Amino acid sequence: MLIIDALQYNNPERARFEEWRDGGVGCVHVTLAIWENARETLTAIGQWNRHFEEHADLIALATTAEEIEEIAASGRTAVVYGFQDTSPFEDDIELIEIFHQLGVRIAQLTYNVQNRVASGCWEPDELGVSKFFGRNVIEEMNRLGMVVDVSHCTEQTCFDAIEYSSRPIAVTHANPQEFVGTDIELNRRNKSTELIRKLAETGGVIGLSNYPKIMKDGSNCTLDTFLDMMAWTVDLVGADTVGLGTDFYDGWPESQIKWWRAGRWARESAIPIKGFSDWPAWFRNSRDFPNIIEGMQKRGFSQAEIEKIVGGNWLRFFRDGFKPASAVS
Amino acid sequence: MLIIDALQYNNPERARFEEWRDGGVGCVHVTLAIWENARETLTAIGQWNRHFEEHADLIALATTAEEIEEIAASGRTAVVYGFQDTSPFEDDIELIEIFHQLGVRIAQLTYNVQNRVASGCWEPDELGVSKFFGRNVIEEMNRLGMVVDVSHCTEQTCFDAIEYSSRPIAVTHANPQEFVGTDIELNRRNKSTELIRKLAETGGVIGLSNYPKIMKDGSNCTLDTFLDMMAWTVDLVGADTVGLGTDFYDGWPESQIKWWRAGRWARESAIPIKGFSDWPAWFRNSRDFPNIIEGMQKRGFSQAEIEKIVGGNWLRFFRDGFKPASAVS
Repeated sequence: MLIIDALQYNNPERARFEEWRDGGVGCVHVTLAIWENARETLTAIGQWNRHFEEHADLIALATTAEEIEEIAASGRTAVVYGFQDTSPFEDDIELIEIFHQLGVRIAQLTYNVQNRVASGCWEPDELGVSKFFGRNVIEEMNRLGMVVDVSHCTEQTCFDAIEYSSRPIAVTHANPQEFVGTDIELNRRNKSTELIRKLAETGGVIGLSNYPKIMKDGSNCTLDTFLDMMAWTVDLVGADTVGLGTDFYDGWPESQIKWWRAGRWARESAIPIKGFSDWPAWFRNSRDFPNIIEGMQKRGFSQAEIEKIVGGNWLRFFRDGFKPASAVS
Repeated sequence: MLIIDALQYNNPERARFEEWRDGGVGCVHVTLAIWENARETLTAIGQWNRHFEEHADLIALATTAEEIEEIAASGRTAVVYGFQDTSPFEDDIELIEIFHQLGVRIAQLTYNVQNRVASGCWEPDELGVSKFFGRNVIEEMNRLGMVVDVSHCTEQTCFDAIEYSSRPIAVTHANPQEFVGTDIELNRRNKSTELIRKLAETGGVIGLSNYPKIMKDGSNCTLDTFLDMMAWTVDLVGADTVGLGTDFYDGWPESQIKWWRAGRWARESAIPIKGFSDWPAWFRNSRDFPNIIEGMQKRGFSQAEIEKIVGGNWLRFFRDGFKPASAVS
């Protein structure tokens, strides 16, 4: 069974790649950049080039769905390159094709705050995709076959992206707000029912996340509750729209949290930094994907549903999404 | 009489500096960057270093009001460095102090479109200063003594900047919307009566512009009409709030227009490019400042008013505005 994790943000190293193998993970969408500019992102790609060389027994870069299938069939994990912010594009429409040439297939419009393209979920709800560069970026990503991701964006940015994008968009890692509930402080990062419906109607996929800060009951979220959320989402929009996007990360020093929260754009984080969250007992790392699958089986998801949710939906979405617009019927 | 032009955007060369001398211009706020990033802006500063060396008989860099007075008193023109977009700060709060150290004393929050800091006048009216980086940038500029300029920003950005800035802000180059009227397509770039009042109440200054695209009757605007606008603005907010900010530019190839309109963020300009505007007959270049002063005298402005409007107000504004917050009582 092909497992695709639509977002992990590890400090890349062999220990993670071994976990992927042990967990039977066929494909992981990795993050090359959140605040990194073009030059810094080239360095990240250079580092991945070395990883692909040194750990060729475990990983390989995939830029098409066919490559994902081939790499996974060989017992290795296919790595899909993505950004969590359009910062690597800087202010240059031409950089989108450059990064596409280097293999990048997914880009989130913005990470938490406002950039030239759009606004993130820490900003006021009503801010959306910018009228000039924002629309230009979406149009160019559509042309090339780079998936628009809106996981960390404002609701308005999500709706705008659906409207302006000529192709389906992705929420690679977020949960349904209505299910998670307002007890969870970061529920703002999750997606409204209205948005998830709209995403589904337009051919998008949402990757449900194990990240404690956006799950019901946080680090105490049980597998049962996680599966309740999965069933709730399937009831809402059907089994073809739901995937996994754990948001799992490991291998970072604690100082990395400040980079994620404040980049270079603030001297202090606007949100208190409390250290890393504890992952739930049933998902300590990628070795635990079989726990989720076993839970789904016990819960009574059909084999067809399980195959779709743990990887099939993302594979279908990527099959068209990674092709240039001119190659899609 | 000290003449200060609060914005010119020439391709820097000796011919312009000679015009400044011939027109008796004591100080010009020049533009180092509109879309340029940090590295490119360093190049622009390096080029100005060479200009100051090669044309020391005509120009010198000023970073305080006292330096402006000294340089002007020596018969030369004081150059004040500014940006028309915060693009040189990229996403880095620390770059503001770096550019302050290099002499930059004025920065417009954004040029026409949305960036990480704020939104420009081509964007929807309701978009303002961004909640995180935008407010951080204003706070840091306030601390250092770098003037916040909002000439090309949305109305909301102007009001937000006044609210978030602990110090008076500037409109270095724009005209009153109500006077210019909607016959002028780019009147959107001008400022509402409400905003000009608010600017005045909070100690700001507005520089009236000869740029044909934002004057009543465009290139056919007569000196009389320009002086009508000046009198109208003085009637509105008093003679202490009004200055000059011609927006004069010269020496560029026509290809430069596309850079101004579209930067690197679009392949085509969103506004049709029709070539350079014809400057009005009474202001063909900086040699014609005496025409404006003579017109003001004939029109019956008092000598005290003339001195304030052609330079005194900006000098007073810069005297505090260029000081660090800790040095201002």
